[in-house]
Amino acid sequence: MEIRKYEMLEISLGHAELEKATEENAAVFQFCGTPEEEKKQIKVPAFRCSGGEYRVRFMPMHEGLWKYRILAGTQNSGGEFLCTAPAENMHGPVRTKGEGFVYDDGVRFLPFGTTCYAWIHQPEELRGETLHTLENAPFNKIRMCIFPKSMPYNNNDPEVYPFRKKEDGSWNVNDSDPVFWDMLDAQIINLKKLGIEADLILFHPYDRWGFAQLTQEESCTYLRYCIARLSAHSNIWWSLANEYEMVHAKTLEDWDEYGEILLAEDPYRHLISIHNFLQLYPKKRWMTHCSVQSGDINRILLWKEQYGLPVMIDECGYEGDIEYEWGNLTGFEMVHRFWQTMCRGGFCTHGETFHREDEVLWWAKGGKLYGESAPRIAFLRELLESLPGEWKPIRRRIGNPNADLSDPAEAESEKKFKEMMEKFPQDIQDSFYAQTPLQIESDQFRLLYLGHACPSRIHMQLPDDGSWKIELIDVWNMTRNFLIEGVRGNICLGLPAKEGMALLAVKE
Amino acid sequence: MEIRKYEMLEISLGHAELEKATEENAAVFQFCGTPEEEKKQIKVPAFRCSGGEYRVRFMPMHEGLWKYRILAGTQNSGGEFLCTAPAENMHGPVRTKGEGFVYDDGVRFLPFGTTCYAWIHQPEELRGETLHTLENAPFNKIRMCIFPKSMPYNNNDPEVYPFRKKEDGSWNVNDSDPVFWDMLDAQIINLKKLGIEADLILFHPYDRWGFAQLTQEESCTYLRYCIARLSAHSNIWWSLANEYEMVHAKTLEDWDEYGEILLAEDPYRHLISIHNFLQLYPKKRWMTHCSVQSGDINRILLWKEQYGLPVMIDECGYEGDIEYEWGNLTGFEMVHRFWQTMCRGGFCTHGETFHREDEVLWWAKGGKLYGESAPRIAFLRELLESLPGEWKPIRRRIGNPNADLSDPAEAESEKKFKEMMEKFPQDIQDSFYAQTPLQIESDQFRLLYLGHACPSRIHMQLPDDGSWKIELIDVWNMTRNFLIEGVRGNICLGLPAKEGMALLAVKE
Repeated sequence: MEIRKYEMLEISLGHAELEKATEENAAVFQFCGTPEEEKKQIKVPAFRCSGGEYRVRFMPMHEGLWKYRILAGTQNSGGEFLCTAPAENMHGPVRTKGEGFVYDDGVRFLPFGTTCYAWIHQPEELRGETLHTLENAPFNKIRMCIFPKSMPYNNNDPEVYPFRKKEDGSWNVNDSDPVFWDMLDAQIINLKKLGIEADLILFHPYDRWGFAQLTQEESCTYLRYCIARLSAHSNIWWSLANEYEMVHAKTLEDWDEYGEILLAEDPYRHLISIHNFLQLYPKKRWMTHCSVQSGDINRILLWKEQYGLPVMIDECGYEGDIEYEWGNLTGFEMVHRFWQTMCRGGFCTHGETFHREDEVLWWAKGGKLYGESAPRIAFLRELLESLPGEWKPIRRRIGNPNADLSDPAEAESEKKFKEMMEKFPQDIQDSFYAQTPLQIESDQFRLLYLGHACPSRIHMQLPDDGSWKIELIDVWNMTRNFLIEGVRGNICLGLPAKEGMALLAVKE
Repeated sequence: MEIRKYEMLEISLGHAELEKATEENAAVFQFCGTPEEEKKQIKVPAFRCSGGEYRVRFMPMHEGLWKYRILAGTQNSGGEFLCTAPAENMHGPVRTKGEGFVYDDGVRFLPFGTTCYAWIHQPEELRGETLHTLENAPFNKIRMCIFPKSMPYNNNDPEVYPFRKKEDGSWNVNDSDPVFWDMLDAQIINLKKLGIEADLILFHPYDRWGFAQLTQEESCTYLRYCIARLSAHSNIWWSLANEYEMVHAKTLEDWDEYGEILLAEDPYRHLISIHNFLQLYPKKRWMTHCSVQSGDINRILLWKEQYGLPVMIDECGYEGDIEYEWGNLTGFEMVHRFWQTMCRGGFCTHGETFHREDEVLWWAKGGKLYGESAPRIAFLRELLESLPGEWKPIRRRIGNPNADLSDPAEAESEKKFKEMMEKFPQDIQDSFYAQTPLQIESDQFRLLYLGHACPSRIHMQLPDDGSWKIELIDVWNMTRNFLIEGVRGNICLGLPAKEGMALLAVKE
């Protein structure tokens, strides 16, 4: 038997005799090749699927020979398989690396997310339309709920639920409905084919069916089913919550327990985050990155320091025209928030909420995109993916950018100013400084984003060595115009004094 | 002798014999009419003016007979005068009233400020141009420095300084230069004729001549000269500082001393504020209102609660195209900040900074206005001045504006949400809620400002009684379009889903 690296192996454990002791059903996988240190045993639990059959799934992360043993009731069979090189576009699960992300194989991953909370809960035809839209959109991550969603514009019931009900009408979390989970598997695989990471929201508050009211024990049973069934998909991320504070039935400790379970039991260490309503959840060891709801991009620098993790602004409002203030951004503002966030060293997530009488809004149900931001996000993605190496956001130099520090009076004034500034908490400093231009840089390039600011000139402080080429970027009109090349050191450039300008300086 | 209420009486105390004991030179004024409680003696100090002559100035605040005695060296003369009704457009000094301002005669004053820090330090021709511009502009308050200003675009030296120098080259604060002060008097009077309040900035950090380095004793001498000389102008406000934290030579206690001196020695109790760089100066008894540098309009509600004073956003950036981020707002953004601020219950100040090779930028030197915001600020001013009574900003109802509270489940959910929200500090609550629409209201009207939000519909909760008429306002195109009348209670209105919309509902 052969299987490609990062692909999913599924082994049936049979049926009837397992039903009484599902928690003991598992398979143990062991790598037999090199590297030696990866030879530890990986135990993966079984899960119940259609027809009462139990299966285990496994995603090999190393090329070479693997052996496995099945532990199921009195059964004790086993086998082996060869893990071969991954398919060309398969890079494995996404990991964090420093302030950003890479695939398991080391290829850089720059997330450009979108949001379709309840797209899998819609009729098949609409799901197909959503996938077709995604195929032509710039997004490589999607925020989506496992449980259905109840909210304005989310008034329809799904055709199928994750669990079947007990006789008393309550959910039986031990009786997962294979129709639902087969459908979810299929959607994750569809996303995988499109190169899209499924950021799976495990719990959320917008519920009218009782999923937000499950006991902690029931919630953990559901979570373990998710791990057993879904973790062998290479393209999933775990998002514990949408708006954890709003799930009133859960405590801070409950969320921590989910994180600990994932950390202990997900063999692949998929990314784990927890999305807030108002305040970020405290840092925990299971947290791989910050999944933030906020429009306060200045805090990205602060959160990066406080958490030591990549920061993803997963919710900063949506392009649209609905009544809610989170859902009526202009296309420009949506694009602006992407640029702001990325030029502060974070990552951003899109959503779209144009009112429709049929209530099919992208942010909830998928369907079509009607807005103007997606092509501009594609433009930004193409630009950033073309930039070499790793970059860091910079805080602009405190004080007057044009101060002549060789003049003792100016130098003294700058020093005093800096001293005064440093007395303030970092967030106050950040709120004052470097709103514009926001800047990211590596030793190869500098990207400055001017946002709403409309200067007619700008000073750039390039290194005194090398030779730099500068382009003027119009983030809305998606143009890149050559300005000058062969420059270094401090220069002053004329600008068109309009909104949405960026400058890219690349070392020649 | 007759003088109109709120006008300035000036009495000469003669010359030579006074020079040794200036601090004892004064005049005492006493009102002889009714009300009885105003019959206390008002002592006003003399000040030295042109030719070494000493004078006292007085502004009577009550109609009727006044007597005065002059105390000057061995002199002890006196006299009386009749204070008659004020000129038609003279309303006296501005006072605070609740969350806003009124003139001394009770007429409402809605400040619409502008900023020309160093306009009086420019050549006469340019000052004339500034006054001509102000005559046709919507501003009724101007932020201006007594000391000259040193900063980018502020490289020229003034023709005259407030003091003459000692032989060692340092300023002699006891030797005020009458040429300067006569000029300043003339400009305050010119502003008064235009109905403009002179918000006089007493100290500021942007200095290359040594005024920011005066000792505390010297600074107090200068302050007392200002009081003696300027306080009888009805249209002055005292602004202790531009950016107090940046004046590194002064301590928090130094600023408090200036406030205490003004409180004790300004007979007219002109408004007193202190403008910040990053953090508001702590509340003091001499403070009449908050003069704030900030773009964080959500904090207006918080500051009003913390200080119990009207809040003026005296610096929130300027319309223009210069390199500094505080000086390259679009016209729309400047107008938006006025609307935001006023619909949060504050007051706002304009400035303009378009780059010019001759360095004549309105924000510093006056001259002409080149931007697009001033006519829109005029439109806003006309609108607000037409609205009856006093208004308050409102915090929008927490939670889903469309929740059906007669449904127990929705009511419970709203209750839990409200409880959760109330655990957060007020500023976090405010940062989340009511960004849009911002709203002010009285029992006669409701004004909602939508800012950058672009909804295609909006719910309004009007009172269930009365009959209301609604207009749609386009803050940039300066149009007011009738939408509907004869409505009450909860209604839902269609909107054009574009930026810069406001709704005015007036009780018919």
